[in-house]
Amino acid sequence: MTEHRVDFEPIGRRGQCRADQSLRDCAQQMGIELVSLCGGKGTCGRCKVRVLEGEMSQRTLAEIEALSTSQIESGYRLACQTYPPGDCKVYVPPESLTAPQRTQVEGLQVDIRPDPVVIPYRVEMTPPSLQDNEADTERLLRVLREQHGIEHPSIDFRVLQELPETLRSFKWQLQASVRDGEIVALRSWPSRQIGLAVDLGTTKIAGYLLNLSTGQVMASKGIMNPQIAYGEDVITRVAHAMESQQGTEQLHKSASTALNQLAIELCTTIGAKPEEIVEVVIVGNTAMHHLFLGLPVKQLALSPYVPAVRGAQDIKARGIGINIAQGAYVHVLPNIAGFVGADHVAVLLATNMRQKKGVVLALDIGTNTEVCLSCDGVMSSVSCASGPAFEGAHIKHGMRASEGAIEHLRIVDDRIEYQTIGGARPMGLCGSAIIDAIAQLYLAGVLDERGRMDLNHRRVRSTDGTSEFVLVDEEGSGGATITITQIDIRQIQLAKGAIRTGIQILLEANGRSEEEIQEVMIAGAFGTYIDVASAVTLGMLPAIPLNRFRQIGNAAGTGARMALSSRAARKEAQEIADCVKYIELAATPQFTRTFAQANYLGKYRIVHGEREVISSNGNQAIE
Amino acid sequence: MTEHRVDFEPIGRRGQCRADQSLRDCAQQMGIELVSLCGGKGTCGRCKVRVLEGEMSQRTLAEIEALSTSQIESGYRLACQTYPPGDCKVYVPPESLTAPQRTQVEGLQVDIRPDPVVIPYRVEMTPPSLQDNEADTERLLRVLREQHGIEHPSIDFRVLQELPETLRSFKWQLQASVRDGEIVALRSWPSRQIGLAVDLGTTKIAGYLLNLSTGQVMASKGIMNPQIAYGEDVITRVAHAMESQQGTEQLHKSASTALNQLAIELCTTIGAKPEEIVEVVIVGNTAMHHLFLGLPVKQLALSPYVPAVRGAQDIKARGIGINIAQGAYVHVLPNIAGFVGADHVAVLLATNMRQKKGVVLALDIGTNTEVCLSCDGVMSSVSCASGPAFEGAHIKHGMRASEGAIEHLRIVDDRIEYQTIGGARPMGLCGSAIIDAIAQLYLAGVLDERGRMDLNHRRVRSTDGTSEFVLVDEEGSGGATITITQIDIRQIQLAKGAIRTGIQILLEANGRSEEEIQEVMIAGAFGTYIDVASAVTLGMLPAIPLNRFRQIGNAAGTGARMALSSRAARKEAQEIADCVKYIELAATPQFTRTFAQANYLGKYRIVHGEREVISSNGNQAIE
Repeated sequence: MTEHRVDFEPIGRRGQCRADQSLRDCAQQMGIELVSLCGGKGTCGRCKVRVLEGEMSQRTLAEIEALSTSQIESGYRLACQTYPPGDCKVYVPPESLTAPQRTQVEGLQVDIRPDPVVIPYRVEMTPPSLQDNEADTERLLRVLREQHGIEHPSIDFRVLQELPETLRSFKWQLQASVRDGEIVALRSWPSRQIGLAVDLGTTKIAGYLLNLSTGQVMASKGIMNPQIAYGEDVITRVAHAMESQQGTEQLHKSASTALNQLAIELCTTIGAKPEEIVEVVIVGNTAMHHLFLGLPVKQLALSPYVPAVRGAQDIKARGIGINIAQGAYVHVLPNIAGFVGADHVAVLLATNMRQKKGVVLALDIGTNTEVCLSCDGVMSSVSCASGPAFEGAHIKHGMRASEGAIEHLRIVDDRIEYQTIGGARPMGLCGSAIIDAIAQLYLAGVLDERGRMDLNHRRVRSTDGTSEFVLVDEEGSGGATITITQIDIRQIQLAKGAIRTGIQILLEANGRSEEEIQEVMIAGAFGTYIDVASAVTLGMLPAIPLNRFRQIGNAAGTGARMALSSRAARKEAQEIADCVKYIELAATPQFTRTFAQANYLGKYRIVHGEREVISSNGNQAIE
Repeated sequence: MTEHRVDFEPIGRRGQCRADQSLRDCAQQMGIELVSLCGGKGTCGRCKVRVLEGEMSQRTLAEIEALSTSQIESGYRLACQTYPPGDCKVYVPPESLTAPQRTQVEGLQVDIRPDPVVIPYRVEMTPPSLQDNEADTERLLRVLREQHGIEHPSIDFRVLQELPETLRSFKWQLQASVRDGEIVALRSWPSRQIGLAVDLGTTKIAGYLLNLSTGQVMASKGIMNPQIAYGEDVITRVAHAMESQQGTEQLHKSASTALNQLAIELCTTIGAKPEEIVEVVIVGNTAMHHLFLGLPVKQLALSPYVPAVRGAQDIKARGIGINIAQGAYVHVLPNIAGFVGADHVAVLLATNMRQKKGVVLALDIGTNTEVCLSCDGVMSSVSCASGPAFEGAHIKHGMRASEGAIEHLRIVDDRIEYQTIGGARPMGLCGSAIIDAIAQLYLAGVLDERGRMDLNHRRVRSTDGTSEFVLVDEEGSGGATITITQIDIRQIQLAKGAIRTGIQILLEANGRSEEEIQEVMIAGAFGTYIDVASAVTLGMLPAIPLNRFRQIGNAAGTGARMALSSRAARKEAQEIADCVKYIELAATPQFTRTFAQANYLGKYRIVHGEREVISSNGNQAIE
């Protein structure tokens, strides 16, 4: 049988496939695991891909049923239903990948012209002699002026301390890394200019090594934030830091140690050393920002919740314990307010929010969820205390997105269909599956709009005084029993209610309605991989057509990378921070009323990409 | 008997004296010890003072004999010969004070308009509220802009780390110390702005605490340089630093620890804390400069003797282990070349050399002696390896200027007259006495112009194969025997020859003769307290009229104080460093010849302030 080449983007994996293999089969053969609840029958609609180049087999009825009109118009197909007859190129959106694959995805693909703050210059000097005994520093600075027109060059003091030996060992020919006229590193010519962008999350730290000259990502990696030892959430950590100066020091040290470790690991993958990193950009929420920099947090935690500093900071890396190039700086993006930090600024930078026309919403869902509403570039933001429930914390059978976690789930007719990470036997539910489960139970009439469970359903039982719905029961065959409890549902209701309240108050403050929202960008690991339709059913996200949503991955990381690559992006970040209007949710008069309503489950479901009122809520039979 | 008030300046001591007390008696009564070899007979001419205000008794014949015409014209008197009939004010030049008194003298009295780089601003802020939750840093910087017109204010990162607590503990009203727009310290309003000027000598470290607002010296103190543990002279220390990175680190640490200790001691005397010091200025020779800053010295010690850096440096104090105000800087004056450092620049600054008309010489005599010749402001400098002999090192009965050291000595008729520090029994010779002794022995014909001792003189004996002249023999009465050996004389000849060579080559390079020199300024502890006439007799200093010499004390320290007080002085220092022409002595063709000649003793003696050829060199009888 003839073979043809299939190219999967943006993962960049290519291989040969036969004409009798579906795109899903091709992907699997190349080690790309696509989401599939129905096992390739074309009924779950999860293995969406977009055809970029090449011919494809005709659409099946299953595809027309599963995809929205706009998706079809944009070239979306279901991978399990599509057979390429020749060479082709296919785009795999992040939400179609299973969790273990996702870490390879870099979030938004942004096209940014490299314009880094640290610039490499080649310098060639005449060695000194008895007739020409100009000092080492002055010799180097003069050459930078003469050969490169740098007007007022200076040199970092630590670089100066090693200068005499450096100049002589490199035989007076080398590469100077210059930042705003200051020499921050000296290496042999030519050397790579490496930068590190970091999204310092409450739970995870994501790092990206960039070639500063090209803006290209050389390596990326996520590690757990070791500050978790001092508390899972921000509030507990802040309380720890407030207890003593030592507490502040511990949290600072914990984060900087992790960053150093991340830098080493990232550098190892490309055969580099951390000393080659000439610039770091860090984003994080205001509390993480303060704890990382060793700034006090007491005034941040107590009313009126004031940050120690709002503007962007350029700090000598060595001054905060970061071991990179001798004279290099850490650039920290600006904060907006006590609860809306540099990570939110990075999201707004990555999504280009200030330049968007119309009504646009951006959410970065996490333990704290920041929401920004932009009306023709006029932006206001809120911070919602969504808590850690979406990450599986405090959920009876919740777990992180690792092998054996159910990540997607649906109720078809009377069966519960699910997919686990790695295809392993189910061990628990990760965040996206919890959302799916509640949405599906609600649509099946097992839950009412208040989230109350139908105690008469035959899969509902009472354990330790709490009602729970049995999703999986494999105990008989040596597996696990997985349930979702009434308490779990209340936790998720509170979490989604917090986010919904934020959206609602933003719309009201700007005199806009839900229907007017033209685009919703959902950032963050959790937000990117949830089923948007399920989230709409829950009443967490606005009930608007599915094609207005974009799941954009780690946009904060993308923003950090942009600021690392480009001076213009840093300027834009500061302008964003200066112009976003921060709304303190708890201080708005309608907060309590809105929050109470927002806890209800939704009024709409998404069918074929469009919203539809949930009319019949009668019990369906589920095996 | 009536009493009147006598005021001694610049010491600032005042008291009541009777009409039958000479100025010398008055001084003694107030604890001011004046130099006196003759015990008040008016024959040694050492207790010179200048009358500033008030009537005095008529000049005695002894005074007319001892003082030069120009000294008499300037109002100089011998304190032992002068009786004030009423209130008066008298100036005591440093050379008339005995050594223990001298440390109180601040060197040159300079009149400088305070124009410090660190400026205190009073800031009053409105505390934040839920309606006004501007970040702490931005609030403070805005107030600095609004209330004081500072255009681009910034804040030191360590000050920022403590800002939230500082603002709240001072209740939003405080004093910001601002340096070029950067907040380097925050204190309560009003607080003193204290600065520290340091002359980092090879042997001694002199520190001055200044009130930056007035330029006034609040306290001063000299301590030994603990780097002596790594070598008495610069060469040994440099060799130690070259051995390993650890050596460099040890020398840096030794100096910074001493500086911290000095800061603590100085602050204690005025009831302050080192954290109140908001700026430090440091001067030292190039090697001391490098060793203090932890800069490598290998390239400085090996041909072509290149400094790591020449220009002035502003370094965060904490970055080099100096514990003062959180964000404060250490300003290091510029060097000129490998062997002519920031201390020489400070001397030229203090002496206002660039603005002097005519031919002017400035010397800073020490282990290394820097000499500058200015011809109408066109300056050239040399560095002379004069060694530690002048400080009593490697001299058989040499000792530092402490109790029991003979500091002045002369041969009158057949007696040897001397004065010891503290009036104690003689224990040895300090530098100035060694110069006196050689000059007196030469004039008495015991030494010929080559410095060879008359072995037939009855006070000359041979001990361990070396001839020596017995100056003091009190062994019989339980005291010491003090001699000066032929080897001592050779050491001093080499030392003075080195200085004389420097002067000679400078004159030749500028096409000038000795007689054209209109002013000679002698700086440094040793240089200030030598008898200039003795030094001329030795052939160390040019044979020109005595009134062209000025002994100016620690001029390097004065220069450091000026740079601490005034931004204009720093600018002038940089311009001095940029325009002084450095002449490498060893590289000049006439060096060897000049040095050989310069070792001869002089051709002139000073009589009544004027030079006179040393004609008869016949042996005089000395008991």
